[in-house]
Amino acid sequence: MTYITPGYRRYRITIEYKGDCFYGWQRQMVTPTVQAEIEDALLVIAREKVIVHGAGRTDTGVHALAQVAHFDVSNELHLDQTMLGINYFLKGKGAVVTSIAPTLPDFHARFSALSRSYHYFILNRRAGSVLQYEHAWHVMKPLNHELMHEAAQLLLGHHDFSAFRDSECQAQNPYRTLDVFDITRDGDMIRAHLKSRAFLHHQVRIMMGTLKRVGDGTIKPSGVLDILASRERKRAGQTAPAHGLFFLGVEYPEKYN
Amino acid sequence: MTYITPGYRRYRITIEYKGDCFYGWQRQMVTPTVQAEIEDALLVIAREKVIVHGAGRTDTGVHALAQVAHFDVSNELHLDQTMLGINYFLKGKGAVVTSIAPTLPDFHARFSALSRSYHYFILNRRAGSVLQYEHAWHVMKPLNHELMHEAAQLLLGHHDFSAFRDSECQAQNPYRTLDVFDITRDGDMIRAHLKSRAFLHHQVRIMMGTLKRVGDGTIKPSGVLDILASRERKRAGQTAPAHGLFFLGVEYPEKYN
Repeated sequence: MTYITPGYRRYRITIEYKGDCFYGWQRQMVTPTVQAEIEDALLVIAREKVIVHGAGRTDTGVHALAQVAHFDVSNELHLDQTMLGINYFLKGKGAVVTSIAPTLPDFHARFSALSRSYHYFILNRRAGSVLQYEHAWHVMKPLNHELMHEAAQLLLGHHDFSAFRDSECQAQNPYRTLDVFDITRDGDMIRAHLKSRAFLHHQVRIMMGTLKRVGDGTIKPSGVLDILASRERKRAGQTAPAHGLFFLGVEYPEKYN
Repeated sequence: MTYITPGYRRYRITIEYKGDCFYGWQRQMVTPTVQAEIEDALLVIAREKVIVHGAGRTDTGVHALAQVAHFDVSNELHLDQTMLGINYFLKGKGAVVTSIAPTLPDFHARFSALSRSYHYFILNRRAGSVLQYEHAWHVMKPLNHELMHEAAQLLLGHHDFSAFRDSECQAQNPYRTLDVFDITRDGDMIRAHLKSRAFLHHQVRIMMGTLKRVGDGTIKPSGVLDILASRERKRAGQTAPAHGLFFLGVEYPEKYN
């Protein structure tokens, strides 16, 4: 299945961005958004009006280490010059293109994705941080990360995740398959690693807000099963802040690598 | 050997700071320095003029995750209130006290130290970074981290490190014992982990500037032995930038823990 216009070439790019610099990924009425900035840069650099399709629509405040996107242009691009050109355009704006390469005409950043990965960081200590404050949720109350991990394992697999879905979520069905949800601790920093083919709107952040309540003893690890089964958003914990969340990257079928 | 004034109590604190917010650790004519800010905070919070002795004198631009310091006061301090008070004073200044505890009267942050540890980060890719640019040296030319690690192993042990010492270094002797110098790579990020009882002025940064030349093929790993033996600063590589360097922490004898 090829969606590309005849005479056009498809390119794949990887983008890193700071969440607090943008109103999320997707182009919309408010600016700046990452998609709009990249499209504006390409209008200048590639001298074509292009639509940049991202793998995942991150929210305002969510960081990305390796967002993936594709776009079509009719001119062949000089890869290195294009990357440096876009990055010159993006300078000081909080985003940077870290790779660019031609890809197959049927590659689609969103629909070809096999899985998406995230990290969520919680700084768990009394004092705040000057080196990590933009990159972790600061929780003062001591959290038991082993109980959090135990609860996380209960959420693995194919479920109706309605309880962990924002009321504004537009997905047609609330079923998702969670493949990885590991909680580890290194000193004061608790890190969650998550992987799924796709996530519902705010799913990671609502699950983290719920695990925080497991960690501080408010609910037992098995309590997350009751919340899951209830399918009621109000039973789950708060939506954890966006600035602790990092979109790590996307996995694609071998043929696209 | 007790250095404490009778009637005084000794406290140990741990401090995290952003290197680019300070002219290094040590109080001097220029401001701000971390030591001066903590002493000023304690004058307000503990209502005593104190001298804060740090474990290591980091330079301008060098970050610290866990600098350790001690100070003596005649009043008993309420630990949590003191920490919050100092941190309120430090708010927005780029430093935060992460722990405070009474310690033994013969504890000395600098002289009791068994070892000091550092991380040095190199972002090794064509594109810059928006999430790591303040915390890693950006080197575009591809570096072979395995060769860098091989060279690093040759520097382990007790040596005259004159070649890796800044001309302004005030240490009386140039001998140091390097216990750990590991180079690992995770994607685009190369990380050095170093441990020694003490380091000479700019030793870590000059060693990193030299290993960079090993990584990019300018010199062979065994070349660092010639540089070491020469004891000539001009033979070694550049002083790597301060913002890639993190003072990780200090190890003390068991009795102080």
